[in-house]
Amino acid sequence: MPTQSEQEKETRRELLEGNIMPETTKQPKRKVRLGIVGGGPGSNIGEAHRYAARLDNRYALVTGVFASDAERSQSFAATLDIAPERRYSSWQEMAEREAQRADGLDVVSIMTPNNSHYAIAKTFLEHGIDVICDKPLTTELEQALELLRLQRQTGLIFGVTYCYSGYPMVRQAREMVRSGELGEIRLVQVEHASGWASTLLEAEGHKQALWRTTPSIAGKSSVVGDLGTHAHHMARFVTGLEISEVSAELSSIVPGRQVDDNAHIKLRFSNGARGMMWASMVATGHWHGLRIRVYGEKGSLEWVQEQPNELVLRPADGRQQILTRGFNWLSPAAQRASRLWPGHPEGYLEAFANLYTDIADAILARRDGLEADALAYLFPTVEDGVLGMKFIDAAVASHQQNGQWTDALVALI
Amino acid sequence: MPTQSEQEKETRRELLEGNIMPETTKQPKRKVRLGIVGGGPGSNIGEAHRYAARLDNRYALVTGVFASDAERSQSFAATLDIAPERRYSSWQEMAEREAQRADGLDVVSIMTPNNSHYAIAKTFLEHGIDVICDKPLTTELEQALELLRLQRQTGLIFGVTYCYSGYPMVRQAREMVRSGELGEIRLVQVEHASGWASTLLEAEGHKQALWRTTPSIAGKSSVVGDLGTHAHHMARFVTGLEISEVSAELSSIVPGRQVDDNAHIKLRFSNGARGMMWASMVATGHWHGLRIRVYGEKGSLEWVQEQPNELVLRPADGRQQILTRGFNWLSPAAQRASRLWPGHPEGYLEAFANLYTDIADAILARRDGLEADALAYLFPTVEDGVLGMKFIDAAVASHQQNGQWTDALVALI
Amino acid sequence: MPTQSEQEKETRRELLEGNIMPETTKQPKRKVRLGIVGGGPGSNIGEAHRYAARLDNRYALVTGVFASDAERSQSFAATLDIAPERRYSSWQEMAEREAQRADGLDVVSIMTPNNSHYAIAKTFLEHGIDVICDKPLTTELEQALELLRLQRQTGLIFGVTYCYSGYPMVRQAREMVRSGELGEIRLVQVEHASGWASTLLEAEGHKQALWRTTPSIAGKSSVVGDLGTHAHHMARFVTGLEISEVSAELSSIVPGRQVDDNAHIKLRFSNGARGMMWASMVATGHWHGLRIRVYGEKGSLEWVQEQPNELVLRPADGRQQILTRGFNWLSPAAQRASRLWPGHPEGYLEAFANLYTDIADAILARRDGLEADALAYLFPTVEDGVLGMKFIDAAVASHQQNGQWTDALVALI
Amino acid sequence: MPTQSEQEKETRRELLEGNIMPETTKQPKRKVRLGIVGGGPGSNIGEAHRYAARLDNRYALVTGVFASDAERSQSFAATLDIAPERRYSSWQEMAEREAQRADGLDVVSIMTPNNSHYAIAKTFLEHGIDVICDKPLTTELEQALELLRLQRQTGLIFGVTYCYSGYPMVRQAREMVRSGELGEIRLVQVEHASGWASTLLEAEGHKQALWRTTPSIAGKSSVVGDLGTHAHHMARFVTGLEISEVSAELSSIVPGRQVDDNAHIKLRFSNGARGMMWASMVATGHWHGLRIRVYGEKGSLEWVQEQPNELVLRPADGRQQILTRGFNWLSPAAQRASRLWPGHPEGYLEAFANLYTDIADAILARRDGLEADALAYLFPTVEDGVLGMKFIDAAVASHQQNGQWTDALVALI
Repeated sequence: MPTQSEQEKETRRELLEGNIMPETTKQPKRKVRLGIVGGGPGSNIGEAHRYAARLDNRYALVTGVFASDAERSQSFAATLDIAPERRYSSWQEMAEREAQRADGLDVVSIMTPNNSHYAIAKTFLEHGIDVICDKPLTTELEQALELLRLQRQTGLIFGVTYCYSGYPMVRQAREMVRSGELGEIRLVQVEHASGWASTLLEAEGHKQALWRTTPSIAGKSSVVGDLGTHAHHMARFVTGLEISEVSAELSSIVPGRQVDDNAHIKLRFSNGARGMMWASMVATGHWHGLRIRVYGEKGSLEWVQEQPNELVLRPADGRQQILTRGFNWLSPAAQRASRLWPGHPEGYLEAFANLYTDIADAILARRDGLEADALAYLFPTVEDGVLGMKFIDAAVASHQQNGQWTDALVALI
Repeated sequence: MPTQSEQEKETRRELLEGNIMPETTKQPKRKVRLGIVGGGPGSNIGEAHRYAARLDNRYALVTGVFASDAERSQSFAATLDIAPERRYSSWQEMAEREAQRADGLDVVSIMTPNNSHYAIAKTFLEHGIDVICDKPLTTELEQALELLRLQRQTGLIFGVTYCYSGYPMVRQAREMVRSGELGEIRLVQVEHASGWASTLLEAEGHKQALWRTTPSIAGKSSVVGDLGTHAHHMARFVTGLEISEVSAELSSIVPGRQVDDNAHIKLRFSNGARGMMWASMVATGHWHGLRIRVYGEKGSLEWVQEQPNELVLRPADGRQQILTRGFNWLSPAAQRASRLWPGHPEGYLEAFANLYTDIADAILARRDGLEADALAYLFPTVEDGVLGMKFIDAAVASHQQNGQWTDALVALI
Repeated sequence: MPTQSEQEKETRRELLEGNIMPETTKQPKRKVRLGIVGGGPGSNIGEAHRYAARLDNRYALVTGVFASDAERSQSFAATLDIAPERRYSSWQEMAEREAQRADGLDVVSIMTPNNSHYAIAKTFLEHGIDVICDKPLTTELEQALELLRLQRQTGLIFGVTYCYSGYPMVRQAREMVRSGELGEIRLVQVEHASGWASTLLEAEGHKQALWRTTPSIAGKSSVVGDLGTHAHHMARFVTGLEISEVSAELSSIVPGRQVDDNAHIKLRFSNGARGMMWASMVATGHWHGLRIRVYGEKGSLEWVQEQPNELVLRPADGRQQILTRGFNWLSPAAQRASRLWPGHPEGYLEAFANLYTDIADAILARRDGLEADALAYLFPTVEDGVLGMKFIDAAVASHQQNGQWTDALVALI
Repeated sequence: MPTQSEQEKETRRELLEGNIMPETTKQPKRKVRLGIVGGGPGSNIGEAHRYAARLDNRYALVTGVFASDAERSQSFAATLDIAPERRYSSWQEMAEREAQRADGLDVVSIMTPNNSHYAIAKTFLEHGIDVICDKPLTTELEQALELLRLQRQTGLIFGVTYCYSGYPMVRQAREMVRSGELGEIRLVQVEHASGWASTLLEAEGHKQALWRTTPSIAGKSSVVGDLGTHAHHMARFVTGLEISEVSAELSSIVPGRQVDDNAHIKLRFSNGARGMMWASMVATGHWHGLRIRVYGEKGSLEWVQEQPNELVLRPADGRQQILTRGFNWLSPAAQRASRLWPGHPEGYLEAFANLYTDIADAILARRDGLEADALAYLFPTVEDGVLGMKFIDAAVASHQQNGQWTDALVALI
């Protein structure tokens, strides 16, 4: 993927040194044309995607199919200022027609239920359109691998919305690990333990609960697919290590529930590090519960999504530090992911927007024929999506064999 | 000011009961036409305003004069997709020309240095245009009163960006006080103590420091004007009380500084409550420092801007509670000011956006001929701006008389 | 075991209602005669035991063998005001001679290395003397069972110093679970993850590290024996459930170390609840790391040893509470374990002292011929010690079989 | 005052380097003979004093007059193992008779209501006995000055129990200020704001409330005397500065109360620093509320009594640190005031015990003819007591003159 110009980088550096919001980089002149599939009326995640795309002013929402019912979709499209001729009645039509327009969409963002991701993503890739897709990427590993092969063939951009990797202090954690500040990584404790479904919500007609507790829609494991994959990506993103083996216990805690709602998973990492994951939707009293702790030879880091502006560093000597956003001594990756001065909190929408903005920057850079800059684009890709699918498979297989250690890696060629 | 339709309210209520993001209310179909004065290249606050206006998709930025240099302003306007014919060379021209257009701006937002607020706001009001203005409102109380008189004559909407009142948990605090949950208010401790200027930054050419430490630009008191007025509004907003008398000690702490940079102020409130304010730009190690604690007969509340998603309730029996955003047991005012589920943090930009969105809603409601709904629009007004100016005057006068208790109220007729 | 008189209880209740320190109960007139084995010069844990015994003024330290070297032991005994004729040269001599005195010791406290606990405890029991013993109880399960059998035969009091169960807010947690405030328990996450041995201290001659990393002294598993057993007892104490099966991964993380220094253990509880335990001495940057979180149908609790005066309650509705010591709405068990008013912190020594005081109260009550009151004496017993030994065995066996689920219960008859 | 031997210091250093509990220093062989006046049955503070004296095993409680009623006092003395012939019927008798014994008390500790401190302390000093006295020292400044003169004449040891200065991290804060780590001190914000009396407890027969709200017993200002003097000492102890002038607003907040229950005081320090103090007993929902924040050129410190094991350091660059007890990189003064390893919390009793232990060490050192070591003995003295009395007078005088700045210093010769 292409890089930004030296000029842009210089400006960026200059601004950051003064702890100034990086106006130039965050509010560029050019826009990426965005189409959406899913996320219609009443969809929370749909609204979050649209906020994320809008925040840095990098996208023009030009088309979308928001619901399976064409009329419902089109009237929703109207409220989003989409031109009448681009309010399609199906995503198939959207792919076909947009591919023929000179001003057709640059990138499609897919926020439908998991079991439709594969077909939609495949179709748009085949029409030469970049893809942003919700996680888990598909419901079957083989589908995910096929999307990977297609992405490799086409060279298109394919982002997967592991949105928590967009937080500045998560990126700071990653850079601190990469730079060796913690020494060799030894232990990783990661949790995504929410309590949102600690009662049998699905019996009360709660839409999201229904969707996540119906086996045919939720995939092989509801809790690992929905929450465990976020934890999986977080652990890999921060440490730069792969999770090579798992020993899992999946449980269905709430009486009457048809899917697993809690997962306890022991982890082995590619460098020999050990870890644990707890993914849950029945941790009563929790409302989000994503937390990662990484321990190296020289110190450890802790980050909690509910206090996202803070990163706790615990060096071996006991002088605990609380690092926060907005300072020029943070890594460039953390600074670039932030909009505000120190002391002015940012939140979930800003983190989500960082993924959208990174993807837009990659698209714009490619348009300019620029080369890739590893540091510049940290958005999760189809590879991350494939490994997430493999992780689900491995956890389920381990559980079915009474917790036997199971391979969690898959060849990415 | 007009209210929302019953239908809209019903939808809102329904959505909130499910802890769902209020899509309908936050992403309306119609847009308000916005013009900007100030906030050009390199201005942090300019960028924050634009983020705030963009977030909920309620504004179309149609015109703006972003810098005193016309060419610089116009090239910046181009980057913001402003039509060439609406890139004016001065705000005077902008007011005049826009007032004549059928599609002229609905509201101007002023983010220039304090000493120009008065003339700009006055001009736009005289042209029948609603106003959003940064605080402190003016540099002289009499100017602020004149703006108030003009607003009363015209009936136009006039918002002042005491942005911290936009936080959901600040609004929750206000509602809890109003509903009597704390009993009669007895004590208020409020701080806006930052450390951003704890060295002589102005001697190093730091632009913002220069602007805030030059007496002719900063106004009568730099630290009271810049930070104390935020604390003043916060105390009034949350308690619903007026600050009637002050006893102030203003200090210039950093050697070589030409303005006050620290203020210690004892407060007397309109109901007999007592309080203290600390406003500072030399609280080394702090990066924001806005905090309010309100004590009543039955319990107390604490809110800290750097952890804005939390409101601490301390009832008399010692069972401390940490209330957070996103729940349906919060007051409607708090729920409406929030976009995300529990556990998903919001930050400064979302709070700032709430002021812009409230103002847009007020403008749209007036357009529909709807009546005012006190609960719906909580944005600070010109009255708040006037009282802020009086507070600065009172603090300075008290200080000059060695801390004598000084009247801080002014008739608002 | 016997109960306190009704009068004492009444006094206690009266005092507690006024949030007053329970002087009468905490400073009784009569003393228990204490003998010590181990904990000589340079022993931290020895000093902690003596602080704990002294704090509530319930014990007279009348004899002790503090070191294996008789001369060293006796000169240390002199500094502790022990009468010359009771400065014995071995614990065997001490048991024999004290058993013959009319004013012989009531109870012996054993704080020697683990591999000597069994012989010492057995001998004192056989001489009719009550026992307090450090954990882990022995190095072999069979030895622990033999101590249990002996205790059952003799009816003597046998306390095991799982000291963290002495904290008032841990006892409050236990009572809240017992009273059904959380509903049925579903999930338990428990950690005792310290970083004290994250470097190869044993190679630098660090005495405690040497002792804990020499397989013959440390027992079958160093980290499970030293830290895991504390976590094991904490989980059982708070929930009232047994840990019935484990799936363990023990690791030796620090290069060159001869024992395991990290344990990741999945847990199954007697009621079907699921859990995880993390025990570590290589969690770099941690300095204690005991934390328990318990999740029920209706809410959850969290307690962290490093903030021991706080217990976090998270009900399902999201209104998080931070409960603290010293209030009369706490359970009697929590109130009785506390000495100070609300807002005045207590710490580790006070918690440890609660075990000593409970044991003294039990001894004094038996002396008075009073009956047992389950609530009054919450100190851990030989049964807890036995189950801790079985837990170590189960963890090691599971690890050796690649994490296979392994029975962690043993018949206590 | 005398110092410890070099040998003792060496041992201490050695132990500390290993983060080991300083056994030798904390558990000395010799004891100081202690007598008590006040603190009888039902007195919380009496019990706290006795815990503090007992903890480090440095005192033998040999005599005491615990209540004004002789019989009540004597039966209480019996429960404390005081020999029958030393259970006196009045403190006058105790002073006289003990002064004549070869094994008479070394030091008397006074914990009676404020209005009797003067006469008792004077009498014991006149009998050549060292004194420990509760704060506020007296009810009249002139009495305090007379005690100072008497102490100077006799050269006796006179400690005043500003107990919060005994916390290790408070001593660490003091050392960090002294060593220049914060640079010149500029601002001090100190609070002792409790909510214990936020209702009219005195009307319900609450003993402590009655005592503190009856003007003749409470002294000139109840809230400044009871809580403000703690805050006053804390500010002076940590900064090493004197409070030279005050501007005070005293209020009686609870309807029906006869004394002031809230104080807002602006402070000027001897080096030109500025500050604020808030002392309150009506901060509803607070249970202790002592907090100090000190701001220098280079950074700031914050300490809160309710989390006493932590000291927050905020350097100017924003890398906030949370320092905790028990590490060998802490100042010797902080290490010496601590008993436990890192991660094992200490509390109020340990802090209080540090004052008693410091005083015992001073008495023992004098007995050995050793010289003073400034670092070794940090207990507050009669000078601190005198300045506390002057501070009360100054606050009251300022309040009576509508907040006029008033001199808070008094010559200590």
